[in-house]
Amino acid sequence: MINTPDPSGLPPLAAGVLARERRALAQAITLCESGRADHRAQADALLAALLPHSGGALRVGISGAPGVGKSSFIEALGMQLLERGERVAVLAVDPSSTVNGGSILGDKTRMETLARQAGAFIRPSPSRGALGGVGQQTREALMLCEAAGFSVIIVETVGVGQSETAVAGMSDVFLLLQSPFGGDELQGIKKGILELADLVVFNKADLNPQATALACSQMRSALGMVRAHSPHWSVPVLPASALTGEGMAAVWDAVLAQRKAMQEAGQFEQRRSEQALAWTSELIAAGLRRRFDANEGVRQALAPTLAAVAEGRMTPVAAAALLLDQFAKPA
Amino acid sequence: MINTPDPSGLPPLAAGVLARERRALAQAITLCESGRADHRAQADALLAALLPHSGGALRVGISGAPGVGKSSFIEALGMQLLERGERVAVLAVDPSSTVNGGSILGDKTRMETLARQAGAFIRPSPSRGALGGVGQQTREALMLCEAAGFSVIIVETVGVGQSETAVAGMSDVFLLLQSPFGGDELQGIKKGILELADLVVFNKADLNPQATALACSQMRSALGMVRAHSPHWSVPVLPASALTGEGMAAVWDAVLAQRKAMQEAGQFEQRRSEQALAWTSELIAAGLRRRFDANEGVRQALAPTLAAVAEGRMTPVAAAALLLDQFAKPA
Repeated sequence: MINTPDPSGLPPLAAGVLARERRALAQAITLCESGRADHRAQADALLAALLPHSGGALRVGISGAPGVGKSSFIEALGMQLLERGERVAVLAVDPSSTVNGGSILGDKTRMETLARQAGAFIRPSPSRGALGGVGQQTREALMLCEAAGFSVIIVETVGVGQSETAVAGMSDVFLLLQSPFGGDELQGIKKGILELADLVVFNKADLNPQATALACSQMRSALGMVRAHSPHWSVPVLPASALTGEGMAAVWDAVLAQRKAMQEAGQFEQRRSEQALAWTSELIAAGLRRRFDANEGVRQALAPTLAAVAEGRMTPVAAAALLLDQFAKPA
Repeated sequence: MINTPDPSGLPPLAAGVLARERRALAQAITLCESGRADHRAQADALLAALLPHSGGALRVGISGAPGVGKSSFIEALGMQLLERGERVAVLAVDPSSTVNGGSILGDKTRMETLARQAGAFIRPSPSRGALGGVGQQTREALMLCEAAGFSVIIVETVGVGQSETAVAGMSDVFLLLQSPFGGDELQGIKKGILELADLVVFNKADLNPQATALACSQMRSALGMVRAHSPHWSVPVLPASALTGEGMAAVWDAVLAQRKAMQEAGQFEQRRSEQALAWTSELIAAGLRRRFDANEGVRQALAPTLAAVAEGRMTPVAAAALLLDQFAKPA
């Protein structure tokens, strides 16, 4: 880090982000992804300085299973947005990163056309698990991209683990991307995911318009069954094709229509406030659990106590009381 | 409490429960529902003594919105079970009890016929919120009923708040009860609830067999869309009528078929172990949060910090760090 003070009084990296320097933005995101304690302190100062400059983008979450054509869909959507005069950042929440240290969304060769555009910024997903839980680093990258003047932030994920909930929790509009082929893929929709969707799009509509129309109709029926619709929004189900461009304008119009409906109902800022409070609560719960798990007394008692519960030798109430007592003991 | 030691070495109330005395069972449940610290200590000792004698019943969760005919369905099911030689206890998780101190399921005049049977035990839902979260007291009552020799425990709830998740988390088989009438009721199925169901039953099939058949078919389609079926079980959707008795035998056969499928796959005990561990983890999280909320430093900082987050003046990461620091400070 360069520590020369900037005439603006901002940390130098913050000034670079606000000046829309891509290199500063990339460095700032890397800083927030670092696991080092001194980096974390710098990252916190940076985020605090940039907070007043964030919040200006439309945040669009996109989730889709492997095979639905997510990369080409996002690329086609992004190119359309650039033509509409938007500046587009693409981020990712990678559910695999916490498990194996790798990144299944980190392939920089994806979205090559979009990546070459001056108005676009594509960041592979963080390669390591975040202490704050799934999506922590992406939430911070999102703030940084907003401070750097991007007007649309697309956050993508594949439908695994907690990642879809995390992405929906940082999106103004959450789009579920589907393929019209293969009942298997449809059945792969996880618990409660359908109910998170503000918009469902069936990609690859060009390959079989009839199958797509049928899939859209089935999806509308399923949505009607599982969710009590918001009074401000009923979930559109749209066919589209990233390949031919068919339906892509209608997708974006639907995203804008939802924003308008939310804003007119006073729900747009409220949803963001609720997301921020929910994130805070999550961070507190994770922090408490981390302190609990790191406690020496708890560490010694945990495994035998949980084994006793699993084998039916101890009640959960007694086990929790025993472990919480360990935690409360002076070290 | 009578404190005379029993010759068996068990607390007297425990001996009474094991001797299948209804009065002892009712007293034991009341003891577990008490908020007094000394009662809690006695309850913990009682539960620990009875733990080896619990676990023997088939636990059936039943959820249904107001209007689907839940009471008459449970009464008809219970009477059928008595004829089959079972001993049946009916418990409830009442989502309203944590909010207003009252109990919407506490009406003792319901299920009058079943309540009069020697082999049946009906307990209204606890009238106050439990520290351990939704369903805590019902989980303990369930253990006590098992120790008292009941062979089937039915746990009912209405579909509000976290109660369905809590009931599914203590059931071997979770049955979702529906009415074939009124799209509104169908649309009232909450986020993720459909995916909890092991079995869906449309009650009141006698009133309109055609509408019921259509509703069953729509439900099968919705289930196919939202859930990846377990390899051990596909969710049956059955018509039934508590009034005429039509389909009631098939409902219980389906419950037994699921138990058999789970047992053959080695999943039955595993599900119970997982439920016990999940409950332990929930109790720990709730206990940690309770200590956090009771901390004097946290209490002073909480409201202004959350207001700053909601208004976008502070990042969730900074807010959580500030509050966790307060918690870690020596008092």
